[in-house]
Amino acid sequence: MLAEPLTVSAPGKVILHGEHAVVHGKAALAVALNLRTFLRIRPSGNGNVFIRLPNIGASLNWEIVQLQTLLTAFSADLDESISPSTEQMDKLKEFTGIATGHPDTQSLATLAFLYLYLSISAKYGQVPGVEIVVWSELPTGAGLGSSAAYSVCLAAALLTACGAIGRPPEEGMSVARWPEEELDLINRWAFRGEQVIHGKPSGVDNSVGTWGGVLRFQSGKITSLKRVPTLRILLTNTKVSRSTKLLVAGVKDKILKFPAIMNPVLASIDAISQECESVLEALAVNPLQEHYSVLEELFDINQHHLNVIGVGHSSLDRVCRATAARGLHSKLTGAGGGGCAITLLRPDTDPLMVEAARRDLGACGFESWETNIGASGVCLHSLSSLKAEVLQAFNEI
Amino acid sequence: MLAEPLTVSAPGKVILHGEHAVVHGKAALAVALNLRTFLRIRPSGNGNVFIRLPNIGASLNWEIVQLQTLLTAFSADLDESISPSTEQMDKLKEFTGIATGHPDTQSLATLAFLYLYLSISAKYGQVPGVEIVVWSELPTGAGLGSSAAYSVCLAAALLTACGAIGRPPEEGMSVARWPEEELDLINRWAFRGEQVIHGKPSGVDNSVGTWGGVLRFQSGKITSLKRVPTLRILLTNTKVSRSTKLLVAGVKDKILKFPAIMNPVLASIDAISQECESVLEALAVNPLQEHYSVLEELFDINQHHLNVIGVGHSSLDRVCRATAARGLHSKLTGAGGGGCAITLLRPDTDPLMVEAARRDLGACGFESWETNIGASGVCLHSLSSLKAEVLQAFNEI
Repeated sequence: MLAEPLTVSAPGKVILHGEHAVVHGKAALAVALNLRTFLRIRPSGNGNVFIRLPNIGASLNWEIVQLQTLLTAFSADLDESISPSTEQMDKLKEFTGIATGHPDTQSLATLAFLYLYLSISAKYGQVPGVEIVVWSELPTGAGLGSSAAYSVCLAAALLTACGAIGRPPEEGMSVARWPEEELDLINRWAFRGEQVIHGKPSGVDNSVGTWGGVLRFQSGKITSLKRVPTLRILLTNTKVSRSTKLLVAGVKDKILKFPAIMNPVLASIDAISQECESVLEALAVNPLQEHYSVLEELFDINQHHLNVIGVGHSSLDRVCRATAARGLHSKLTGAGGGGCAITLLRPDTDPLMVEAARRDLGACGFESWETNIGASGVCLHSLSSLKAEVLQAFNEI
Repeated sequence: MLAEPLTVSAPGKVILHGEHAVVHGKAALAVALNLRTFLRIRPSGNGNVFIRLPNIGASLNWEIVQLQTLLTAFSADLDESISPSTEQMDKLKEFTGIATGHPDTQSLATLAFLYLYLSISAKYGQVPGVEIVVWSELPTGAGLGSSAAYSVCLAAALLTACGAIGRPPEEGMSVARWPEEELDLINRWAFRGEQVIHGKPSGVDNSVGTWGGVLRFQSGKITSLKRVPTLRILLTNTKVSRSTKLLVAGVKDKILKFPAIMNPVLASIDAISQECESVLEALAVNPLQEHYSVLEELFDINQHHLNVIGVGHSSLDRVCRATAARGLHSKLTGAGGGGCAITLLRPDTDPLMVEAARRDLGACGFESWETNIGASGVCLHSLSSLKAEVLQAFNEI
């Protein structure tokens, strides 16, 4: 089943429009971010199970017989739609010596891996001894779906390794994708990984990581946009940390305090998502400069709306000003109150200008990446197609 | 009728909330600004008619017999609700040698004065030879209702001088007001002065100049708020000139382009005006810190909305940032695209802090005044109650 190494990757996600409004029943557009998490899986020489996560400095190693002792807790009537149980999580914490309470990133990554390894083994037959390396271009804890990209990669790799899904034929292509029903299975398992890490995830992040492109999310219903353009963006991490929970609560308080003022703002944000969806579909068919103008205008309007509902931050204002000085349009993405901002670039935006904007943002203490959105979901890479950076990350370890 | 000198003053106006939205049927709150226009009228020694306007460097002088030759054009069936006719305006332009086309500020002030002098004389009996000086704290052309304050002062002075309205008893008070029906007459004549200057004024500016306090304006209907607090503000003139007509057209275009996005924003602005009205009435009865917090929040929200509808400007953003750095809340007032901003001050805002904010604003090239809003409408001043600055302005000329 796993005769030779397999390298998969999954994208991060950004919210294009509708963050916070989605909590109040409005539409949000989540889009695949081409900062990716890469996972290489290969048979281990000694039959042990290794997993190494260089981004968070973790390296774990278990004998396969040790893991087999845990399998019974994962074998009863397994179904990929059942959430991880408290008993299962307690068992894994006991096994790994992770204290109960609020586990750190490394502990959560360990628990999600073991949960998926054991559940998939119990359901489809033991995953053999493997050596896994996961390396990501995504910063963690920045609201960019890094945990979902990790879960999606794990699900795709483990399901392939145990033969639950096939290895898609590469046929000389640099990347290959699984058929739709197999992607659906990957997505459902990835969601369980997300449940281990986040408790009650919305399912948006793992869906974006699996399907890629642009997803519309409203009242718990997730649908893919049919035609999706790839857009150049600059992603900026202000590195200002914030509590999503407190920000969400603050918005709710504002709506309760000023319903007649705030509800129309949510309605306007909803209309922005609709308008953006139409423009993206039009852009995918026939890219015109005026489409980009509208996307820029929608960014500006929504950034003001997000300030109105109270999730702005002076650091985000600084990103908007610094990029506006270069003629670029930015908005916060995700929870706000710090975190990340996205800046739209046009296909013909001068790379020198983008570099200048990045320098300005760097001078403010922010980190930024030029990348694109509307990227492909989880995929299998041929070794020759991997960027040197990824190969180096795999081999240096 | 005019045995001794008479000094009147009228306030300017600022829009607290609802600018632009009012064009689309929403409510606006216009409020009297305690930067005032002062007018002194006294019998002239030689029976001539003099008017001096030091702010705009105008000094005009006519023999009363000259003016009498024009009276016939103003005598037919005069009613203060009839608009100035083209024939009347052409006659005045011919008399003064003002070219047709777009008259400058000095020409408009001259035409408005002559129009009111002649119409009031024709209706109520010739106004005697008088010497008038008008001096204003208001900058002209900044959207602060300086022309309306001028028209209101002229109407009050000329109607009093010819005996159409009484001279309100001062009874030891520093200022006196006319009874309501006389104020109504002043307002109607002031509106005609505004028609001479602006063509099709809304009537809001002269109403604020006459009644003072806070006026609600919606779909052409103007109503006074019953209880009104006086609020300390900082008024800042960015000195960035703009075309109100183009700004209004830009908003209309945006609404047509994105109706589903923009109409909710107008609804939200409307709700801000309603909320502000409630808070002002509550504040007049029982001033609480939380009322000021709400007013500040409404300023911030509406400033974002005004940016959304496209009437912001980088100079206005600078005012907001400079004052926010001192913990103060600002919004543009009026047409936007430059022009003026108002900053709310609390009763206990430290004067040193206000001075620091003014210095910061001055460093940006802006001019600012500490004053208050919710001021009294047109009133008569006892000589002893006039500020030294006003007396100096009258006497220096």
